Amino acid sequence: MKPESYFSKEIKPALENEPPGEWLPKIPDGCIRLSSGYPDRGLVPVDGVKEAVAELLDEEKDLPFHYIGSRKMEELSVFLQQLMNGCSVSVNDEEMLITSGACQAIDLIARVLVDDETVVALESPTYMEALEIFQNYTKHFISVEVDEHGLRTDRLEEVLKDRRRNGETLPKVLYTIPSFQNPTGTTMTEERRDHIIRLAEEYDFLIIEDDAYGNVYFEKGMVPLKSRGGDRVLYVGSLSKVVAPGLRIGWIAARPEFIRALSWFKKDLGHPFAQASVAAFLGMSDLDGHFASLRKVYKEKCRLMLSELKRELPSEVSWYVPEGGYFVWVRVPGVDTSGMLPAALSEGVSYVPGKYFFLDREEGIEYLRLSFSYASKQDIVEGVQRLGRVVEAAVGFEGGK
Amino acid sequence: MKPESYFSKEIKPALENEPPGEWLPKIPDGCIRLSSGYPDRGLVPVDGVKEAVAELLDEEKDLPFHYIGSRKMEELSVFLQQLMNGCSVSVNDEEMLITSGACQAIDLIARVLVDDETVVALESPTYMEALEIFQNYTKHFISVEVDEHGLRTDRLEEVLKDRRRNGETLPKVLYTIPSFQNPTGTTMTEERRDHIIRLAEEYDFLIIEDDAYGNVYFEKGMVPLKSRGGDRVLYVGSLSKVVAPGLRIGWIAARPEFIRALSWFKKDLGHPFAQASVAAFLGMSDLDGHFASLRKVYKEKCRLMLSELKRELPSEVSWYVPEGGYFVWVRVPGVDTSGMLPAALSEGVSYVPGKYFFLDREEGIEYLRLSFSYASKQDIVEGVQRLGRVVEAAVGFEGGK
Repeated sequence: MKPESYFSKEIKPALENEPPGEWLPKIPDGCIRLSSGYPDRGLVPVDGVKEAVAELLDEEKDLPFHYIGSRKMEELSVFLQQLMNGCSVSVNDEEMLITSGACQAIDLIARVLVDDETVVALESPTYMEALEIFQNYTKHFISVEVDEHGLRTDRLEEVLKDRRRNGETLPKVLYTIPSFQNPTGTTMTEERRDHIIRLAEEYDFLIIEDDAYGNVYFEKGMVPLKSRGGDRVLYVGSLSKVVAPGLRIGWIAARPEFIRALSWFKKDLGHPFAQASVAAFLGMSDLDGHFASLRKVYKEKCRLMLSELKRELPSEVSWYVPEGGYFVWVRVPGVDTSGMLPAALSEGVSYVPGKYFFLDREEGIEYLRLSFSYASKQDIVEGVQRLGRVVEAAVGFEGGK
Repeated sequence: MKPESYFSKEIKPALENEPPGEWLPKIPDGCIRLSSGYPDRGLVPVDGVKEAVAELLDEEKDLPFHYIGSRKMEELSVFLQQLMNGCSVSVNDEEMLITSGACQAIDLIARVLVDDETVVALESPTYMEALEIFQNYTKHFISVEVDEHGLRTDRLEEVLKDRRRNGETLPKVLYTIPSFQNPTGTTMTEERRDHIIRLAEEYDFLIIEDDAYGNVYFEKGMVPLKSRGGDRVLYVGSLSKVVAPGLRIGWIAARPEFIRALSWFKKDLGHPFAQASVAAFLGMSDLDGHFASLRKVYKEKCRLMLSELKRELPSEVSWYVPEGGYFVWVRVPGVDTSGMLPAALSEGVSYVPGKYFFLDREEGIEYLRLSFSYASKQDIVEGVQRLGRVVEAAVGFEGGK
């Protein structure tokens, strides 16, 4: 028997794509992980969660182990709603679905909205997992570039106008990470935010707003698109970057009709133990203090990485200056960053090659994504030095060709 | 804007079905839950998990909070493989995918195998969540009855022969719960197990074997179909019934080609904290002892429920005698058990009306599912007395019409 012959006709086109996770470098032991978009080790609430689990189980006994769930699960919803209120977005229970992280949220939204005829508009570059997800559902995309002020909404408008003029299918959804984008670290300006909402109305598309980094700002936060675009925006939130990814807590805020359909297809059911543990942790924590300290830590680490890059990298190498988030997006002119990766790994530093963040991989050849979130300050210094040596050699080699 | 107008063409047929979870009765406070397929409260490892989490975090610190995951996650795979070895099924890493419970496993398998032209063969009655899941993907089903010896494979063969003779589409997959079935509690005999494997070969279908209750036997376990059917069987396991559902640990064992495709669409990613916690718990536990005591507890509670049913219910009411699992499947001739439910809930006892376990709801009108797993012994006695009063009244009423 041939397993492939039993596959659904729906999934066959998806399986022609590159397999998921190809972007993840195989990182040798001792390598400094500038590829990893994980939180700072010191900010992960190890003791807090330990204490919270003990308190939860003392108080609720077996409750969080059944599907009945625990009272704490409602508290988690309340907490997440408060978090959104703090960003000027008002959400009630019917407008919200807790998910197992932002990826599941994006996947559920794609399941509900995207079929093989749907056109999806994407930022270029964009989050590689989202690229993988949307490509599981359709082959029709519009890619619009991101610059230091976020998505080029003027370019988006041009594309939409052209499409309308030529009678081509218009996009049904736009996926965007407006604040402290992955991978560029850049943030959409107020003007562009207003523009994008006007375009959504005029060209009748929905917006999937991935706000995973919204609370990881250095100086000031941005008001989410959800607060301006209302019904047209499906907001995706996550605790991965502000608490910890291993707990798998994300959510969707959207109109009740969307939430109802999204819940319909969420078949991992609730996660009572994990969700109640997180709720117990949040209930015990000084979240404002935690957020303040994480903003300080990431701001310092980002500054450090930028100053090290300036010192260690050849002058033709450039990057955007982030105002939040986890990443620095680096351009190494004339160098294929995928080809350079094995040298970097043997030098003891990892990054993610830029091509994985583009629909058309060719566009990403010269780029690479660095993360300052996970590595310690010492490792950032050492890691950038190692990267500097590898880049020097590559630039020299390419230049000498 | 009208949210429904943006839905994918793929999901629109699914949304015409009854919404998920309709089977779940709204249970008033103080009601004895004979509807709940949860483990016994005393068997849920509250202290064990508390201790395991503390030990895990002392040992691994922040590791289980990142996507890198923890060494414990590998241990979980090893443990689950050993559990399967104990049931005469040998599985390696490439043949296995850990899921967030059995439902997610079934949903992923449906996603990979079932499209809107696929015919799915189902047991009648069967697990209501599985019914919901398959109906999200197709409208084409074959229903084959279950009796006290499990699926009527002779009937299945007749249906297959007829279909082949008439040039009708043959089923691509059969979903079965061969051991201690939900909802009937019955178990497929050895002969029927052999028969079903022969049929799968002859008529070229795959088997989804849901073995969630396989380890909850009273006298002896059954060798899974996976051990006989090999490549044609996609095995679904779960710790929900032997440890706790709130931890959301299930898995799929199948050929690597299937596992690769299933992983492709699993977008909640790993659950490092939950999975590492469970692995730590399993590592510290005397599992053989735990399994022995859960078998004893459920056997006693089942016996108790059966003897109470015999004493409290009118003589025309009948049921199968389970040899394992969580459920007793009861027939109340001439009574619509859905119509009777409000009376039962106000009497203070819940059950699941039989109709939800059938594709053709009419077939289930006279049935109801009781669970002896969650309620205490005292509650089983009291609950069945309450049920007895409600059934007496219903039978009298229907009889008097």
